[in-house]
Amino acid sequence: VYSLNGNTGLCTVAVDAMGGDHAPDEILKGAAEAAARGVTILLVGQASLLEERIAALNLPRMPIHDAPDVIGMDEQLKAVRRKKGSSLHVAARLVTEGAADAAVSAGNSAAIMVVSMLECGVQVGIDRPAFGSMLPTVKDGCFLLDVGANSVVTAENLVQFAIMGEVYVRLARKIDRPRVALLSNGSEDFKGTKEIKEAGELLRNIDMNFIGNVEGNHVFEGNVDVVVCDGFSGNIFLKGVEGVGLFLFDLVREEVTRDIVGKIAGAALSPAFGRIRRRVDYQEHGGAAVLGVNEVIVNCHGRSRARAITTSILQAEKLARDRLVERIGEALHHDDAEARRGSRIVRALHLRGEKV
Amino acid sequence: VYSLNGNTGLCTVAVDAMGGDHAPDEILKGAAEAAARGVTILLVGQASLLEERIAALNLPRMPIHDAPDVIGMDEQLKAVRRKKGSSLHVAARLVTEGAADAAVSAGNSAAIMVVSMLECGVQVGIDRPAFGSMLPTVKDGCFLLDVGANSVVTAENLVQFAIMGEVYVRLARKIDRPRVALLSNGSEDFKGTKEIKEAGELLRNIDMNFIGNVEGNHVFEGNVDVVVCDGFSGNIFLKGVEGVGLFLFDLVREEVTRDIVGKIAGAALSPAFGRIRRRVDYQEHGGAAVLGVNEVIVNCHGRSRARAITTSILQAEKLARDRLVERIGEALHHDDAEARRGSRIVRALHLRGEKV
Repeated sequence: VYSLNGNTGLCTVAVDAMGGDHAPDEILKGAAEAAARGVTILLVGQASLLEERIAALNLPRMPIHDAPDVIGMDEQLKAVRRKKGSSLHVAARLVTEGAADAAVSAGNSAAIMVVSMLECGVQVGIDRPAFGSMLPTVKDGCFLLDVGANSVVTAENLVQFAIMGEVYVRLARKIDRPRVALLSNGSEDFKGTKEIKEAGELLRNIDMNFIGNVEGNHVFEGNVDVVVCDGFSGNIFLKGVEGVGLFLFDLVREEVTRDIVGKIAGAALSPAFGRIRRRVDYQEHGGAAVLGVNEVIVNCHGRSRARAITTSILQAEKLARDRLVERIGEALHHDDAEARRGSRIVRALHLRGEKV
Repeated sequence: VYSLNGNTGLCTVAVDAMGGDHAPDEILKGAAEAAARGVTILLVGQASLLEERIAALNLPRMPIHDAPDVIGMDEQLKAVRRKKGSSLHVAARLVTEGAADAAVSAGNSAAIMVVSMLECGVQVGIDRPAFGSMLPTVKDGCFLLDVGANSVVTAENLVQFAIMGEVYVRLARKIDRPRVALLSNGSEDFKGTKEIKEAGELLRNIDMNFIGNVEGNHVFEGNVDVVVCDGFSGNIFLKGVEGVGLFLFDLVREEVTRDIVGKIAGAALSPAFGRIRRRVDYQEHGGAAVLGVNEVIVNCHGRSRARAITTSILQAEKLARDRLVERIGEALHHDDAEARRGSRIVRALHLRGEKV
């Protein structure tokens, strides 16, 4: 019915047009920009409303798949599970059914995780999916996971996060052997929770460029590509970093409006500040990918405006084209044949299972 | 023997002259500056070395208490416990014995916590002492604890941290009813670990200005005075914030040396950047206080230079003069008489004990 898989060679992305603080207008604008860049868009939401807003915003027509329900930003997960007709459920289902190759939503992230698991299923070999997010650093960027899905984790969960993060960074940044570390309260092996120490032992026995523990301040120094942590610490870390960034920009703004010298110098530096802001702005870095489910699902920040939506759609499209899910599956299983040859990854993953 | 309690009316601070990356020179310079501001200093360390360095640095004479041993920055805690003759042990012991009113060290923070507990004892009513640290915010500052002593905490530990943090901020910032919050991965009551949710319930039943959960980004907005968390998350949060701050300053430096416009504007804004840097610089905010032991002990950053040492000595002196330890004791016990009248604090603290 839809003009899926257009002649651009790019994948189709289902976009939840109803999720997020600025839905649907900013979502529609962001989707239109991604469409202009060649991505086939499939909007999901209340069709009549979306048609009306597209016309009001003077945007080009985009295919719409109707979804009667909407999930609120604060909706309880029990209610979320039952709302099978929500734009989020339908978007994820369209990917599972093959009508789209990836889905993007700026809705409630807990809901996105639950719906991704329900509609797409969890990957074989993964116990708990995770959210991963790219942070800016002095060099290229650092991928942090889990940033919010799992408040409590086991050592095996952390090992699985490490494997998924490594695959993600290999694809996203074209690095062969990303440096992987555990986020801890000290760089020595004996620092951290019981789970971190156990995960460190397991990771040292895997064929991976595991460099040990890193502390929070080292994440930005450009010497590590994947940083693994539980979702509670990851969330607190990510939001703290975001908060202090905004705080510092506020201080700068205060200073450059203080007097005439400040105003002139501030105006002269305005392009420089713009470059810095873009470099640290989450809107430029795409959304948080759901890792460990059977499809590519990207969660944008709830406050996302059009630009962040476009970035996330392009990111989701690329991850689908790079076959993220299959690559994670390969890394996890590595495969039965290799397992029989004694693949170290498989052994490490089963290490504790054997002991039990 | 020493000229303790001079005629300035200020307290005596024992200074571990051997701990920290820049010991003893920067410690000595910082101590001399604090002495110049009226604090009675009692240096602790290898007397002959310290005398030699004081002479070489042309500093005024300060009383020295000899301590033969030194604790290394990476020394294992088992070894630390046994090194009773270390400058750190001796400094803490001098406070317990009444020869000084507070102690300051820039040594290994795990060692400082262990030695403080051993030499000064844990306060009655406290199960686990904590490190607390003041962060800059858009308004006055926010006190975060625990920032590293306890990787794993119970709900009761968090409640005790909240009480200690509230007292600290009442004294340090002269606020009557500091706003206290739990650091969590969402502001709703149902967000967070089991321990956080339990602690939230307990804190809601205490006579305290408890405002619920805060997320990492809200810490800097100036709407909360005390933020409570486990030491693992607190450490990661603090270091992440420190790391991203340095990263942003690096980006600014890069931009203002990029071209001639940047250089001129950067030079014009140099005093402004200086003001911002001072506002966020940990060296201006004092060290991390050990809360929950029977004496005032302040732990400076290992990288501390003279200025940070001076700030921390002044901070320790003030906390001793404000009788931090007694004030915490009062808040905890509130007191036997009040407990008999059914003090809600005491009830909350014993809530789980009764259930068991």
